[in-house]
Amino acid sequence: MKNTGEFELIGRISESVRDSVPEGVTGIGDDCAVIPQQSGRDTLVTTDLLVEGRHFLLPGISPGELGWKSAAVNISDIAAMGGRPESAFLSIALPGGFGPEWVDEFIAGFRELAGRFGVALLGGDTSASPDKLFINVTLLGSCEGGKALKRSGARPGDLVCVTGTLGDSGAGLRLVTEQASGAATAESGTARYLLRRHCKPEPRVAEGLALAGIPGVHSMMDVSDGIASDLRHILDASGGLGAEIETGSLPLSGELLEICRERCWEAARLALCAGEDYELLFTIAPEALGSVQAALEAAGGAVATVIGRITEAGTPLCWKGWEGEPPRGFTHF
Amino acid sequence: MKNTGEFELIGRISESVRDSVPEGVTGIGDDCAVIPQQSGRDTLVTTDLLVEGRHFLLPGISPGELGWKSAAVNISDIAAMGGRPESAFLSIALPGGFGPEWVDEFIAGFRELAGRFGVALLGGDTSASPDKLFINVTLLGSCEGGKALKRSGARPGDLVCVTGTLGDSGAGLRLVTEQASGAATAESGTARYLLRRHCKPEPRVAEGLALAGIPGVHSMMDVSDGIASDLRHILDASGGLGAEIETGSLPLSGELLEICRERCWEAARLALCAGEDYELLFTIAPEALGSVQAALEAAGGAVATVIGRITEAGTPLCWKGWEGEPPRGFTHF
Repeated sequence: MKNTGEFELIGRISESVRDSVPEGVTGIGDDCAVIPQQSGRDTLVTTDLLVEGRHFLLPGISPGELGWKSAAVNISDIAAMGGRPESAFLSIALPGGFGPEWVDEFIAGFRELAGRFGVALLGGDTSASPDKLFINVTLLGSCEGGKALKRSGARPGDLVCVTGTLGDSGAGLRLVTEQASGAATAESGTARYLLRRHCKPEPRVAEGLALAGIPGVHSMMDVSDGIASDLRHILDASGGLGAEIETGSLPLSGELLEICRERCWEAARLALCAGEDYELLFTIAPEALGSVQAALEAAGGAVATVIGRITEAGTPLCWKGWEGEPPRGFTHF
Repeated sequence: MKNTGEFELIGRISESVRDSVPEGVTGIGDDCAVIPQQSGRDTLVTTDLLVEGRHFLLPGISPGELGWKSAAVNISDIAAMGGRPESAFLSIALPGGFGPEWVDEFIAGFRELAGRFGVALLGGDTSASPDKLFINVTLLGSCEGGKALKRSGARPGDLVCVTGTLGDSGAGLRLVTEQASGAATAESGTARYLLRRHCKPEPRVAEGLALAGIPGVHSMMDVSDGIASDLRHILDASGGLGAEIETGSLPLSGELLEICRERCWEAARLALCAGEDYELLFTIAPEALGSVQAALEAAGGAVATVIGRITEAGTPLCWKGWEGEPPRGFTHF
């Protein structure tokens, strides 16, 4: 689309529908919509569109992996609010040549991940597609009333934290692209790890639930477009705050460092810009760090790394240790 | 997709996920999923995918009409359960050349209809599309707990009823197709009426709510693919019942009859097979007919016409007055 990026487009739509959003409801602009229920819990709703050639390459990802990933990117949005995922709705437009076996494998992959979190596939729609494969998943979940962790709660002085490691998925995508262009990818353990991180991401549900229970956790989102873009959303939603990020503190896996050495790839660029890590990016009061680490350890999941600090409104987003143009995340247009 | 129709595909998916559907929840196979809530109300969820070239033609429908229709087809699914529509989630994949004005008009059309029913657009996703326009809407609504009107409740002896008139949308689509092929369509009031019925259908929300309050109404769905297909779903879901439909009793508008005379089109075929009428197809105990007519009149909406009767399990679906091959509805593949 000419001259209109995704966020400008979402901004236009969001602005034009703002007056129809009921009191107490969170609409467009966070990982999920938040709809209070009489029961005292809040319903969380998210929807993600995956377009062949834009969000995935065929045959770079198997039907089962694509099913998994379609579930994962949505479950991750629920995790990013500190919620519990519950039910899924799948729409799929299939080009010619995608037979029943393809669909069976796709659904098996979807269920493999969804089943782990007790998410039931309750509906959807199907159609032929004239050309490309399109997948849309809507996921419903819930959280304790008023306790959803939004993007908008960051405060000056907060520590900026991220779970797990960044950039692995971006390196995996590069390996997929290499394979698609006919290059032989070494079947090393490193390559397998990075491909898995790209094709079968692990949404951080247990981590999100653990963080939602800690009062000092102020804001959260998931890393889908790369923290270079994603952190900007937290800052904007929190009243135009700034941040100082130590790019030297970004959590990088041994596998990412190894492949970057081998291929002369820039690890920090992959970590900041490539996205699709589906880790949790969150900000906390400095004194909550101990509780956060303990809660994540108790949840048995990924650990958190402090990568920087939130600064006052009006200050810039500063990537310390990064040279050249400011990093930019993935764009859907 | 070769050798696999939509219903076979949906059947495969439905079968493979059946064991993951929680007790008390209605999953794939009705107009909406039905999820009981602690509040005593049930949440209704539906999702519909609209693919350019398959579900609509460009430029045969304006951006505003397409926005309206994207809302309408989903609101109609909520109406078909006797529910109240509440919130919408829109995913849209835009090919090159669809600028901000296009999006603004689309959203304005969406809101024009959604706003009438108090439906707020609370989220969505956007992407570039490599080729065609894809739209997916998920709609949430609610109904009194346990009172959703499902496809599965039909009983032998029930009268088969439908609101409004059938076939208008199908005739409108033929006019759109003619225009697309360069033929001049007379700008008559008749043509305008039929085009409007196709491009801006009116979901029967008030009618659905009125019918949900009557104990003798046993089953319901909306007419999206044509009653030749849609009635089959009610019969199958209700334990393999049969029906006798008087094709001479199908409610047809004066406009449809007029254009069919002019163009030598078969009105009954349009009424049975073309679909997209978004009327309500429902079955009732014969003694409930008076209450049904009174409730629909009180709702100020469309009237109902009796078109036939449900027969015992194992008996055929019989289209009385129809000659030749049995009629078949729209297929999404």
